[in-house]
Amino acid sequence: MSQDRAAGGRMGDSSLLRRLNLAAALGAFLESESLTLRELRAIVGVSRPTAEDLLAELLTEGRVEETTPPRKPSSARGAGRPARYFRFRAESGYVAGLDIGAHKAMAVVSDLRGNTLATHRVELDPDLPGPDRVQAAVDVARASWAQAQLGADDITGIACGVTGLLSAAEGVHDVREGPVGSGLAPYSLPGFTELDVTGELSEGLGRPVTVANDVKLAALAEHWKGAARDHRDIVYMFAGHRAGAGVLIDGQVHQGRHGAAGEIGALPMLGWEAAVDRLHARGAALAAEQGVGPGREGELVIASAARQDSESLAVLIEFAEVLARGAAVLALAVDPEVVVLGGGMSRGGAIIAEPFRRELAKLTLVPIEVLSSTMGADSVALGAARMALDTVLADLLAVPGS
Amino acid sequence: MSQDRAAGGRMGDSSLLRRLNLAAALGAFLESESLTLRELRAIVGVSRPTAEDLLAELLTEGRVEETTPPRKPSSARGAGRPARYFRFRAESGYVAGLDIGAHKAMAVVSDLRGNTLATHRVELDPDLPGPDRVQAAVDVARASWAQAQLGADDITGIACGVTGLLSAAEGVHDVREGPVGSGLAPYSLPGFTELDVTGELSEGLGRPVTVANDVKLAALAEHWKGAARDHRDIVYMFAGHRAGAGVLIDGQVHQGRHGAAGEIGALPMLGWEAAVDRLHARGAALAAEQGVGPGREGELVIASAARQDSESLAVLIEFAEVLARGAAVLALAVDPEVVVLGGGMSRGGAIIAEPFRRELAKLTLVPIEVLSSTMGADSVALGAARMALDTVLADLLAVPGS
Repeated sequence: MSQDRAAGGRMGDSSLLRRLNLAAALGAFLESESLTLRELRAIVGVSRPTAEDLLAELLTEGRVEETTPPRKPSSARGAGRPARYFRFRAESGYVAGLDIGAHKAMAVVSDLRGNTLATHRVELDPDLPGPDRVQAAVDVARASWAQAQLGADDITGIACGVTGLLSAAEGVHDVREGPVGSGLAPYSLPGFTELDVTGELSEGLGRPVTVANDVKLAALAEHWKGAARDHRDIVYMFAGHRAGAGVLIDGQVHQGRHGAAGEIGALPMLGWEAAVDRLHARGAALAAEQGVGPGREGELVIASAARQDSESLAVLIEFAEVLARGAAVLALAVDPEVVVLGGGMSRGGAIIAEPFRRELAKLTLVPIEVLSSTMGADSVALGAARMALDTVLADLLAVPGS
Repeated sequence: MSQDRAAGGRMGDSSLLRRLNLAAALGAFLESESLTLRELRAIVGVSRPTAEDLLAELLTEGRVEETTPPRKPSSARGAGRPARYFRFRAESGYVAGLDIGAHKAMAVVSDLRGNTLATHRVELDPDLPGPDRVQAAVDVARASWAQAQLGADDITGIACGVTGLLSAAEGVHDVREGPVGSGLAPYSLPGFTELDVTGELSEGLGRPVTVANDVKLAALAEHWKGAARDHRDIVYMFAGHRAGAGVLIDGQVHQGRHGAAGEIGALPMLGWEAAVDRLHARGAALAAEQGVGPGREGELVIASAARQDSESLAVLIEFAEVLARGAAVLALAVDPEVVVLGGGMSRGGAIIAEPFRRELAKLTLVPIEVLSSTMGADSVALGAARMALDTVLADLLAVPGS
């Protein structure tokens, strides 16, 4: 039996090999800043003529372009003709990441390298009806594309983070009632349990939109560009206007069967809901005292605790401790590499982080590293862009039939 | 640029394609009872000469053999020359699955189709020192191989389940102390925290052994041959002499960073340790009353509860409820498709299952299906065999450089 015969005179076989090689070449460019033909050839493991063919094809498709050589120390420069360098064309596609919350809608646009080209945000009334809220997100997305001088056809993938749980959206939990006896109904944005949010967004934007829980996307952003860049198994605790959690396994959002993985706030034994209510009440009282409008309650409690106000301190410590109990539950369940503490309230610094670490250490079997988020208020939208990017890049690198 | 050039006249390219095709052909045989050449060709997507070459190579390697045609309804039989059928040779390799517990060591031997060829078990004194316990496991494994008329060289993969947590074994948690303040030190077999169990077993058996937590392997067995065959994301609760939990994600054991994923018994708020202690105490009291030796306490409590003994009933209901609280914690964390209730105590039937289901339903966001284990006392050893099999088959199907 000859190698030649096995390698196949038939078109079917050679065409599969060609597609595999093209995908490997594109993958090589995605993983490097730039490559020479010789480097490409070494990575893909093909002959020089094959590597030339692959490069020519990627140049024709517009996925790759010639670029300037990287700076090297002068000692590393050879004497002969300088090699030509090629790189992946980040602008050969664009993705959008959206974030729909109680107080805002937000969009980012990224190229295929994940460089942010535009960010757009509008403030929203927390009582805005569901359909208007979705329309606001559609408008914000379109405004961000215009800002980046892109048309709808330039956007090859869209994902959207949504606060809370909602119905009828693929991959997102459908829950209208809390657990029996807990008195807890999972939070959703006004009217969102009656809306097909995925369908409405997809229709409004003229292309399929993936919808996911906002905290899970914030966790993904933290893995992508934040504190957890070096880790793949992550428990992410979100301490914001509400509290939430997300789990990444092997660098991917772990959704669970109903998109509800990480919803441990529902466990009455953690005392989560009561602590959040107490934080809100303290914030509302401070806002009333100081004549400050809604939306800044968290800041006010943190500021007052920083001035050693004992009630605000007690409220924040309790909040940090229930959050730590939730983190401990998740840490024991999935045994992650790190716990990341994120969200607006985490910017309270040691006031939150210290009791959090202390309580977590009490409840876990092994000391677990706690990292503070390094992301800002755009973490959910960036996480959504990352999720869209993952889908687009997986499609680019997929070889049907292999 | 021509397809022919891309498909490569060079040996490097054609040899990669050949290995990919061989792996695809072997995979096709692994997924089917038997295949004709025509079926093989259709699945791998190659020309007839290529398919003939691949089949010849697999026959030469001893991975595939000719077999009798499957029975078909007479209407389905064609008039022409009957096609020849080929199948994967299950006996082209063997794996061993071991189980080291407090009361026994056990081994199963399987062929590469997972058919059990031999099972061997010895009872052990719960106080047996660590090195003697490891030696007993080595002896049991060798006895099972002899029983199956196999030599050590026939065994291509070995995995072993171990009760509790142990040190220095790759992928297994190293914990000597429980969480501060909980009064709980995670259980280990006598002397096992001072032993390199992986190293000792590998040395004793003359080949590498993978060691994993026994409850996680029981979960894997349940996915392989038990109640959870149709599910890939599973929370498994083990109610035995001790209580434990394991998580499967996408059909694989989720180990976590320290091999400690699922160790939620450490959460003091669940009341797990106290309930287990009460169950043991009740069992010991019944054994003393009835003059029964150690090791049968669980049965005694179940039998007495079945006779409506109110104290035994109360103890079992509390045990079921704390187990359900643990299951709820894991279910909220990973949002699985099903929860499986296994282990010897689960054979108490409705006495355990009913309060378990009731408490679980109270604490979870969505109704979650609870399945009762259909596995027997060999579940850990079978799970270990499955783990060994996964490694061996992955190696068989791997194509270096692809």
